Amino acid sequence: MSLLRHIRACNAWRPERFIPLWRDEARVGLIRRDNAEALHRFTDVFSVEPDGVWLIAPGDFDAVSAAVDVVVERLVAEGRVAKWRNEFFAVSARWGMAPLFKLDRGAVGFFGVRAYGVHLNGWRRAGDTLQLWIGRRAADKKVAPDKLDNLVAGGIGHEHGIEATLIKEADEEASLPAGIAKRAIAVGALSYRMEVERGLRDDVLFLYDLEVPAGFTPKNRDGEIVEFSLMSASDVMERVHRSDDFKFNVNLVIIDFALRHGLVTPQDPEYLDLVTGLRRPLD
Amino acid sequence: MSLLRHIRACNAWRPERFIPLWRDEARVGLIRRDNAEALHRFTDVFSVEPDGVWLIAPGDFDAVSAAVDVVVERLVAEGRVAKWRNEFFAVSARWGMAPLFKLDRGAVGFFGVRAYGVHLNGWRRAGDTLQLWIGRRAADKKVAPDKLDNLVAGGIGHEHGIEATLIKEADEEASLPAGIAKRAIAVGALSYRMEVERGLRDDVLFLYDLEVPAGFTPKNRDGEIVEFSLMSASDVMERVHRSDDFKFNVNLVIIDFALRHGLVTPQDPEYLDLVTGLRRPLD
Repeated sequence: MSLLRHIRACNAWRPERFIPLWRDEARVGLIRRDNAEALHRFTDVFSVEPDGVWLIAPGDFDAVSAAVDVVVERLVAEGRVAKWRNEFFAVSARWGMAPLFKLDRGAVGFFGVRAYGVHLNGWRRAGDTLQLWIGRRAADKKVAPDKLDNLVAGGIGHEHGIEATLIKEADEEASLPAGIAKRAIAVGALSYRMEVERGLRDDVLFLYDLEVPAGFTPKNRDGEIVEFSLMSASDVMERVHRSDDFKFNVNLVIIDFALRHGLVTPQDPEYLDLVTGLRRPLD
Repeated sequence: MSLLRHIRACNAWRPERFIPLWRDEARVGLIRRDNAEALHRFTDVFSVEPDGVWLIAPGDFDAVSAAVDVVVERLVAEGRVAKWRNEFFAVSARWGMAPLFKLDRGAVGFFGVRAYGVHLNGWRRAGDTLQLWIGRRAADKKVAPDKLDNLVAGGIGHEHGIEATLIKEADEEASLPAGIAKRAIAVGALSYRMEVERGLRDDVLFLYDLEVPAGFTPKNRDGEIVEFSLMSASDVMERVHRSDDFKFNVNLVIIDFALRHGLVTPQDPEYLDLVTGLRRPLD
């Protein structure tokens, strides 16, 4: 087994199966050809051409969001979009630019819109041993049920900032007080693009490390995590190496942690491929 | 000013000005067209075609190295290669693979061969302040004279490993005892490719962080660094932001340090371009 296979799995997509989604001059998504076909009939909202889909609904942020919403409602009814999540992601040309419209989280994959999340590595030291707090996802989670996860993780919704999301999720997922969560240190980001059942994930994860006080034990409050356990970092790496026990993208977050903390060293023949593979250029 | 300009400067090259250098099936360099012209006459060693140069000298590692050496000697005499460095770099298809031949360090840029180095961030904490030990390069250095540098840095020569190089350079450049240098933690790598006067730099730097004991003051022994000073990390970042006081690639090492230690945060509009830009994919 290897670490690199997780990076490959999170970057498995075939460009020829997708066409760009445009809003004016900005590419805002990558739509699988079968999904593009399903948009042909919405001629007031989308113009579907062989080499791209143009979002032509007129008007401002609210008007475009509403027009897209009507389409998403039909896609949900037809089962092309799994279900409403009642949580909106902002869609813009690039991170930090003005949002062009908002999109229900459930439809992000269908349109292949870039999504942003935040993941927190909660670590502590017991003597010479580096430990990580690891959660187990609930069995009824839509994505990656039962898989192991970081202490805190979540998608960044429309009108929520990175650190606000981190603090909210830290509270809901782990009962981690804001006063502690605020000590988390920004340590980088990773990016990957993978085909999924209903379309494409084009994800950017902002990464944080937090030294969790020895006296604190995380407790879930939102039902998304069923248990937390404190594992040695070397046991975590062993499982990432040998199993698929962790959620697909959490493997990448942990590999990045391991690279930054000397748990994987240049003696590993995969080292340079790991270092360069965690951050696909953002086009 | 910005941080991203340093990454752009270290990645400034125009692919159309270069053609690949091949040894059998392996691309081992990128030769600028004017340099390729200068190899035409060495018909026993190189076959120069419009779309590539083939290293055709027959024989094993020693035989090929000797044949290339004869060519390099002529290039030095003509001023196309600056001077002998009497230090050899191994040339292979990829890091960790068997070396195909060795090449004088002075000729690496002419052939656009990938070179590997190691850089050490020497840090300590004074109260709440994170500090970095920074060296100033000697005025007679061929590359980047007078510029600021990391505590320890050096190229990885043929038959030297990464950590052996780190320990050797730590001793020569900073009088850092091996017992301390060995505590350095591998924290990743960065990669860039830039055109230089005589050809191309295609570099990979392995990165280490070391907490330097408060009682230790670095002292140079090889004449390459004229002085060391202890600077607060925020002053270092200020200078990286606003000046070109640091050696071109040391800016990148420090930006990577800053990203891993929360000194640059996602609130910086350049954040994702910095994170993804430090590690060009290795082709």
